[in-house]
Amino acid sequence: MDDYQAGIEILRKMLGTERAEAVVERFKSLSPAFEKEAVSVVFGRTWSRSTIDLKTRSLCSIGILASLGRLNALKINFTLAMENGASLEEIVEALLQVAIYAGYPAALDALVLLDETVKSSRKEP
Amino acid sequence: MDDYQAGIEILRKMLGTERAEAVVERFKSLSPAFEKEAVSVVFGRTWSRSTIDLKTRSLCSIGILASLGRLNALKINFTLAMENGASLEEIVEALLQVAIYAGYPAALDALVLLDETVKSSRKEP
Amino acid sequence: MDDYQAGIEILRKMLGTERAEAVVERFKSLSPAFEKEAVSVVFGRTWSRSTIDLKTRSLCSIGILASLGRLNALKINFTLAMENGASLEEIVEALLQVAIYAGYPAALDALVLLDETVKSSRKEP
Amino acid sequence: MDDYQAGIEILRKMLGTERAEAVVERFKSLSPAFEKEAVSVVFGRTWSRSTIDLKTRSLCSIGILASLGRLNALKINFTLAMENGASLEEIVEALLQVAIYAGYPAALDALVLLDETVKSSRKEP
Amino acid sequence: MDDYQAGIEILRKMLGTERAEAVVERFKSLSPAFEKEAVSVVFGRTWSRSTIDLKTRSLCSIGILASLGRLNALKINFTLAMENGASLEEIVEALLQVAIYAGYPAALDALVLLDETVKSSRKEP
Amino acid sequence: MDDYQAGIEILRKMLGTERAEAVVERFKSLSPAFEKEAVSVVFGRTWSRSTIDLKTRSLCSIGILASLGRLNALKINFTLAMENGASLEEIVEALLQVAIYAGYPAALDALVLLDETVKSSRKEP
Repeated sequence: MDDYQAGIEILRKMLGTERAEAVVERFKSLSPAFEKEAVSVVFGRTWSRSTIDLKTRSLCSIGILASLGRLNALKINFTLAMENGASLEEIVEALLQVAIYAGYPAALDALVLLDETVKSSRKEP
Repeated sequence: MDDYQAGIEILRKMLGTERAEAVVERFKSLSPAFEKEAVSVVFGRTWSRSTIDLKTRSLCSIGILASLGRLNALKINFTLAMENGASLEEIVEALLQVAIYAGYPAALDALVLLDETVKSSRKEP
Repeated sequence: MDDYQAGIEILRKMLGTERAEAVVERFKSLSPAFEKEAVSVVFGRTWSRSTIDLKTRSLCSIGILASLGRLNALKINFTLAMENGASLEEIVEALLQVAIYAGYPAALDALVLLDETVKSSRKEP
Repeated sequence: MDDYQAGIEILRKMLGTERAEAVVERFKSLSPAFEKEAVSVVFGRTWSRSTIDLKTRSLCSIGILASLGRLNALKINFTLAMENGASLEEIVEALLQVAIYAGYPAALDALVLLDETVKSSRKEP
Repeated sequence: MDDYQAGIEILRKMLGTERAEAVVERFKSLSPAFEKEAVSVVFGRTWSRSTIDLKTRSLCSIGILASLGRLNALKINFTLAMENGASLEEIVEALLQVAIYAGYPAALDALVLLDETVKSSRKEP
Repeated sequence: MDDYQAGIEILRKMLGTERAEAVVERFKSLSPAFEKEAVSVVFGRTWSRSTIDLKTRSLCSIGILASLGRLNALKINFTLAMENGASLEEIVEALLQVAIYAGYPAALDALVLLDETVKSSRKEP
């Protein structure tokens, strides 16, 4: 199995077929070259690794992305984290670690986005 | 127990009395005002929280600090992570997550520091 | 007086009771745990310190937040700065210092937000 | 010719008179002091330099701005890059270099903005 | 008086002729083109402005540079701040504002550098 | 040819066999897992792409890495840029673009490192 196929597999495992497809289609509509790289490298080569479990990997990812203020990927990672078994309380707890190490404003920006993400996902049937 | 005392407690629990003391004295020599705030807020109010365990908190912290390139705190956190039960492999794994989300160069800078930290700790009796 | 109460006090002193309440409620709606930490640490432990006056503290804060692109906290700090006696000219002057030290684009992003903040505050009765 | 006038010249050369004017007016509406500095320093003193050609300068600029997440200047620079002879494929290629060196999420945020910029420019007559 | 000359003037006013010269020579040895731009833009066009006084400008600058971890310029700015009338206590106070808004580790890195700067300046006759 | 092998090829093409080996060995000594990912993704999948030439890719990379302050990768990229045909003047020119878009202090930190890199390479036989 090549990197791209491995990326599709792990995305489906974490998000279900339908939402995995939506992420891939969104990337492809922005740039097919980026989509190929992101699926192969981010998901196929890296998220599919072992050593740390998916939930821990998710909480680390949220810490990284909130610190850097990368909002599109952070939004996807809030969903990934919840699908990987992290509770809202655990996500907030990771953001409190962001507060001391990257500043309270980085945590605030992330919490505003988390709030929007949770509210919009509740509206879905 | 006030925040400062709680900070000293959790530092001792994680690092042992001697090394906890060394961190506190280092901070105090730089600035007593900073030492009071860092011990009380970073350790007393935040590291002593529950919801996520110390090892997960450590791996998140490494992700945040490596992404931002904060080298002094990252060095302390490599030691904290190992004391909190993270293996070298797990720390490297968190840094591979840094590679995709903050760039491979952020992971490289962190790995250079990790290498120095591990080597200097081996020289201690 | 504990840190949280000190935070509420300084917020009220700077913003007036009503707007202080609005900030606290906004934080609480995002996460009660974050609200407790932000009020206690950011406002209670730090903004209530002396040594530098509130206006200087505000201009420093704007410099920090504009450099890092933390938009939610920057918006609150534009209001805080004006309440702490900074004129629009002085805020812009701090942003020109941001321009040389963090790049002109960081100042531009901040000025776009400042413009929105000033315009929306004028619409209030 | 002074720095400001040189800035206006290079802006007109790259964007045409009408769009150059629009950028200058936008800056002026935010802050006349900022407009004077940005036109004189960014465009007059720097963009008008030689040694590297305008297209290469544009691709470097996109790399810098995408890495730092400076969205207002990045949007202007997508237009500048296309006017300076960069194809969409070359811009995406610069963003793939951003992906490995600043993280795939930095490239994603930039691609979302590029998509909006291209779509809104197509709507213009 | 042109921008470059204005830059030399303000540098001399803040640092005295000898240390101003040392900064300029250091920049020139790295790159004459950079030296010309830095002296003209950073010092001639920006530091020589009024609206906020030199001490406030210094404390803002320290906030910006500590947040971004720009160590060479931060070191120069610690000296500038002290020459512009800021006490060590006021500099530390600005760094406590950095702690809450950019994270305690950003303040720690800056304090380590401040400590080195103060110690090396004491060794001078 | 797989990604890893493609990475070794492009590294050898750009740096010559001996120096390519030195980079790979350095990465391997820090972490074999990181070395495999960095060679495969950074060099094999990305640097070996076409659309923009190696010199332009180098100047973009320097812009990105100087903006983020990633010093270990920046040092390698100064060497890569010179091997890919960029003159010192062109590298400095890219750093002047960094000055306006990421701040003059980011360019200063990079120039200090460039100076060290050039000096240490001259000492080699």
